[in-house]
Amino acid sequence: MGRLSELFDPASVGVLGATDREGAVGRAIVENLRADFDGDIVPINPSREEVLGLECYADVTTAPQIDLAVVVVPPPAVLETVRELAVAGIENVIVITAGFAETGDEGAERERELAEIAAEYDLNVVGPNSLGVISTDAGMNATFAPENARQGSISFLSQSGAFITAVLEWANEQGIGFRNVVSLGNKTVLDETDFVREWGHDPETDVGIGYLESIDDGRTFMDAAGEVTAETPIVLVKSGRTDAGAQAASSHTGAIAGSERAYEAALEQAGVIRATSVQELFDYARALSGLTEPESDGVAVVTNAGGPGVLTTDAVGDSRLEMATFTDETIGKLTEVLPDESNVYNPIDAVGDADADRLGDALEIAVSDPNVGSAAVVAAPTAVLQYDVLSETIIEKRETSGKPIVTSLMGGQSARAAEEVLREFGIPNYFDPSRAVAGLDALARYRDVRSRTVDDPERFDVDRERAREILSRAARRGDNRLGVESMELLEAYGIPTPAGEIVDDPDRARAMAESISGDVVVKVVSPDISHKSDIGGVKVGVTDEQVCDAYEDVVSRARTYQPDATILGVQIQEKLDLEGSTETIVGMSRDPQFGPLVLFGLGGIFVEILEDTSVRVAPVDEGAARQMIEEIRATPLFRGARGRESADIEAISETIQRLSQLATDFPAILELDVNPLVAGADGVRAIDLRLTVDTEEL
Amino acid sequence: MGRLSELFDPASVGVLGATDREGAVGRAIVENLRADFDGDIVPINPSREEVLGLECYADVTTAPQIDLAVVVVPPPAVLETVRELAVAGIENVIVITAGFAETGDEGAERERELAEIAAEYDLNVVGPNSLGVISTDAGMNATFAPENARQGSISFLSQSGAFITAVLEWANEQGIGFRNVVSLGNKTVLDETDFVREWGHDPETDVGIGYLESIDDGRTFMDAAGEVTAETPIVLVKSGRTDAGAQAASSHTGAIAGSERAYEAALEQAGVIRATSVQELFDYARALSGLTEPESDGVAVVTNAGGPGVLTTDAVGDSRLEMATFTDETIGKLTEVLPDESNVYNPIDAVGDADADRLGDALEIAVSDPNVGSAAVVAAPTAVLQYDVLSETIIEKRETSGKPIVTSLMGGQSARAAEEVLREFGIPNYFDPSRAVAGLDALARYRDVRSRTVDDPERFDVDRERAREILSRAARRGDNRLGVESMELLEAYGIPTPAGEIVDDPDRARAMAESISGDVVVKVVSPDISHKSDIGGVKVGVTDEQVCDAYEDVVSRARTYQPDATILGVQIQEKLDLEGSTETIVGMSRDPQFGPLVLFGLGGIFVEILEDTSVRVAPVDEGAARQMIEEIRATPLFRGARGRESADIEAISETIQRLSQLATDFPAILELDVNPLVAGADGVRAIDLRLTVDTEEL
Repeated sequence: MGRLSELFDPASVGVLGATDREGAVGRAIVENLRADFDGDIVPINPSREEVLGLECYADVTTAPQIDLAVVVVPPPAVLETVRELAVAGIENVIVITAGFAETGDEGAERERELAEIAAEYDLNVVGPNSLGVISTDAGMNATFAPENARQGSISFLSQSGAFITAVLEWANEQGIGFRNVVSLGNKTVLDETDFVREWGHDPETDVGIGYLESIDDGRTFMDAAGEVTAETPIVLVKSGRTDAGAQAASSHTGAIAGSERAYEAALEQAGVIRATSVQELFDYARALSGLTEPESDGVAVVTNAGGPGVLTTDAVGDSRLEMATFTDETIGKLTEVLPDESNVYNPIDAVGDADADRLGDALEIAVSDPNVGSAAVVAAPTAVLQYDVLSETIIEKRETSGKPIVTSLMGGQSARAAEEVLREFGIPNYFDPSRAVAGLDALARYRDVRSRTVDDPERFDVDRERAREILSRAARRGDNRLGVESMELLEAYGIPTPAGEIVDDPDRARAMAESISGDVVVKVVSPDISHKSDIGGVKVGVTDEQVCDAYEDVVSRARTYQPDATILGVQIQEKLDLEGSTETIVGMSRDPQFGPLVLFGLGGIFVEILEDTSVRVAPVDEGAARQMIEEIRATPLFRGARGRESADIEAISETIQRLSQLATDFPAILELDVNPLVAGADGVRAIDLRLTVDTEEL
Repeated sequence: MGRLSELFDPASVGVLGATDREGAVGRAIVENLRADFDGDIVPINPSREEVLGLECYADVTTAPQIDLAVVVVPPPAVLETVRELAVAGIENVIVITAGFAETGDEGAERERELAEIAAEYDLNVVGPNSLGVISTDAGMNATFAPENARQGSISFLSQSGAFITAVLEWANEQGIGFRNVVSLGNKTVLDETDFVREWGHDPETDVGIGYLESIDDGRTFMDAAGEVTAETPIVLVKSGRTDAGAQAASSHTGAIAGSERAYEAALEQAGVIRATSVQELFDYARALSGLTEPESDGVAVVTNAGGPGVLTTDAVGDSRLEMATFTDETIGKLTEVLPDESNVYNPIDAVGDADADRLGDALEIAVSDPNVGSAAVVAAPTAVLQYDVLSETIIEKRETSGKPIVTSLMGGQSARAAEEVLREFGIPNYFDPSRAVAGLDALARYRDVRSRTVDDPERFDVDRERAREILSRAARRGDNRLGVESMELLEAYGIPTPAGEIVDDPDRARAMAESISGDVVVKVVSPDISHKSDIGGVKVGVTDEQVCDAYEDVVSRARTYQPDATILGVQIQEKLDLEGSTETIVGMSRDPQFGPLVLFGLGGIFVEILEDTSVRVAPVDEGAARQMIEEIRATPLFRGARGRESADIEAISETIQRLSQLATDFPAILELDVNPLVAGADGVRAIDLRLTVDTEEL
């Protein structure tokens, strides 16, 4: 498949199924194309001689050359039509026609065939079940949407055609312009990954935005998006975040939704900024399309309105940004130019009788402060403040300072003209000051995306063969759920475990206990019992003398709890000095879209109750592993809070990375939990292990 | 002070300082009054004979009768003017003039005098430093705002005049109407509490909204708001939520900001719905002013737009509401009326070619379902959907069903006319579907406020005299920070403590240990050392034989750590069986605005690290105490998660209530922490105690 530029800039567009019947989609598309398109429009329909005054051709073989075909023929005719196009050498096809996988088995079969034809002829196919494609630069509106898009630098894709029609009219009123708009439809051939890649190739796309309900090949998408976001910001609404939403999305698209946590981690790792509503999507996009990123997090707020100034400050407090602390020089200058009743500290309140000049002076002083990375001008309409003069001033200060400035010139009609002028110079105006701050926040988030470095994950020297042997042994036994008896697996990957062994009679237990200095832990080993301590299957602090009784006791409790449970033996384990150490969990699960998802969190009973965990899509490099440790709420526990010794962060980080390597090396491991992984000042120890394997894969 | 109705419905308004000088505030007010006011407008200014064609009087004694005076004279003349008004028997005064406490010491003195005059003559004074008051029913715009308000049923107060001017023009464009608008200014006499009370007296106020930076007498406000919210919803933006915001608010108003947690708890307890932005404030207000509360939480979503339907579902998932599960009957009926490709489960997707009738049929079936408490209609503009017809249908279905319906008819101009019709019938339209859901959510929150019962807190039978004696003893010693040596205080209030005593020599320690069955805990007692376990000042599990050594050790560690620390002795305490129990904290602190604030949370080191706590303004009744236990994230720990025994919730709840009673009984207690309070299946025990007292108060 080649690049998609011809899809957006064809010299001629054919419409297969063009008609002039009122209300027909085949008419709407010809009408929309006629409105602005400079190239040739070629209606094709064997039963028409003319469509809306344009000559109509019977089929593609008799028609003039076309670069892009829009297919609106009835569902049963789609496959034949596409094949004819392919044979005629046409590579770019938009299938508008619905009635494919979204309608049941017959449609799904038709869609599979469409995919085959596309593969055979190496076609770029958008759809089927697509609203179409708009390319504003080419003046091409190849959709049946009731509105066209304004020209701009935002590239927009959507898995829902209705999402596009829902926002276009509104966006036009808001003056939001697009580079192109793509309705993905059923994504049989071209999907989000292809268009995201195209954003990276297109210097005229300032920001790429999208609405998605599923991401089909998660790993490929992550790689593509990760490359693009190094140069071009991406903002996505990925719906189906909640259980109810995921269910709705899956019944809407028929796609299997991956887990929300996987999407969250994957999008974050790919540098994608996520929005949760239409409004957020465009609030972020407007800032990202017009402004550069702030170099530092300090925000200056300049206002004529005390209350809204305080609200703006709260919004900054809620964001990743912070209110800038002005230098003495700045304070001195502000004191000079502002009246006595003003506040010269941040937020700068130039009070209610401020005119555009006074606000402009304050803004100039503020953005000259080295502690200020960005600014928000927040204003209420007054008799003395002229918004048009103010907006000219803001544009000038932004250009001379090079720092991003957003505005919240509140009001209605009185702000409209100023808003338009500001927009032309890339400055977004928001009615609500907290949304203006959200715009700045998006810029700072993108700056962080851009400046980060992703290291190649370290490949640790591990005993992969031994690990394979342990897993294969289990597979031969037919076990798909493994437990502490497989601790060797962790040892093979260099994850520390306590001294000890699994034994199958009390005497051996005694011998084992004697070989370990100090008291031991006695634990029944059974793949069928998950929470062994809950049923009394674990004894802690057992002396050499007590070990035989303890052995009998844990076995008998397991038998009472579940008579048919397989008991693989009893583990006699070194009792660790847990004083001052913390129980953590490291684990992994396999996501259908993104592959192994590595998890770290507070362990023991807290993992389930507090759900204080962080996740990453594997492979996890050192920087990511350290972030995972820092992200959880309980992270101060590892940094020596309240007189405790600091935990060995290095050892935790390495364990996360080694587990990531294990998960990546063995696709057969579906789920794995080390819980608890005890983390103390002198390293970590994996105390318990559970994993589920796909025995077919081994 | 009488009711405030005359302030909102005067027969005549005098303007002290009226002028026709261009740009003067005294002119703007006369102009604004002239626009709509039916009553008499009486300009008063000794240097004018006429103002804007109205006869002007030299002073209030020569002027005709006025019911309400608006004062715009220069700052130095305000006090004399107000006194003259008072002498002339005028009770209602709005002081527009600024230059009071907000400008420094001189202004603050002037403001104190204003308060004295008002008290002497029992005046209703709004301001000073107020934008004025609008009463739309009376056609009275007694402000200098550039815009008037539309008529409506929302009563609006604001501590910031700029907040009012910032929203009025926008609100007019949005068709949002107000019952009245009050700019509180410096709140010298009338404050938020007075106007909130007035909302309760006014049957025409459907919802009261406000922007506040401080609440002056927190307790009184809570009582007033609590009464009002039983009948009329209140939505407030209280800014200064964040540290930066609180600082900005305090420099803006000069008011001492109370703690955010106290505000949060107090507003919640008073039934006030809190908004954090301008947009949220009005999103909530629009729903609350036009719709009744849903009887149940199930939401039906009806749409012609798949993607926006999924987004709406996500928003419902994020809210306190849930997607309704339709009955079989509903599914059957929907299947009958909708085409095959539709989704008849919730969200109902009537697909892209749905017209108003089809959506109306689906809506009617949905709102007839007993599992549906409310509905959202979400639509994208299409060629076949007429928004005006759809809105008529929605209005009809809402009336016949009696259930609240919100809409998100997306688009721009095409939605405008429909929006206006819907608004007339109380149905708010939101461009963003997630905001429509926020509107429904506000309705459900208000339903919960309305349906809750607040019990009188139980008065436990306690030994108040003994508690007073313990505190007084400390006061005589000059101690303001007390510790475990004062555990008797808890005993006096019926809060269980472990067996034990504080001793001051090793032999007594031994004797005490022998009198307690089992091992003991040995703890140094010093008001100067906060975290005793961090310095080795606590030994757990000490046998009778070890107790003398432990005694010497904890004392010597304390001396090493802080040589000048006062050591009150060593506590020998029963060692509790902590297996299966949870360390919690109960505590209180005294907030300047709201009084004692009671806290409950996960104790031990977790309280500081995870900050998993809940708070209430005292007194705390049983229902509130139980909510406090349920609110923390770790609450499953008390309900027997993971095979643990359930904790004695009753005992925890009683301890919270008893502590609330102690805090209410003794204003001298400034802060008190019981940490840990160990909670197990067989009750609770207070293990450690710290408190700070105001010795002057004792």
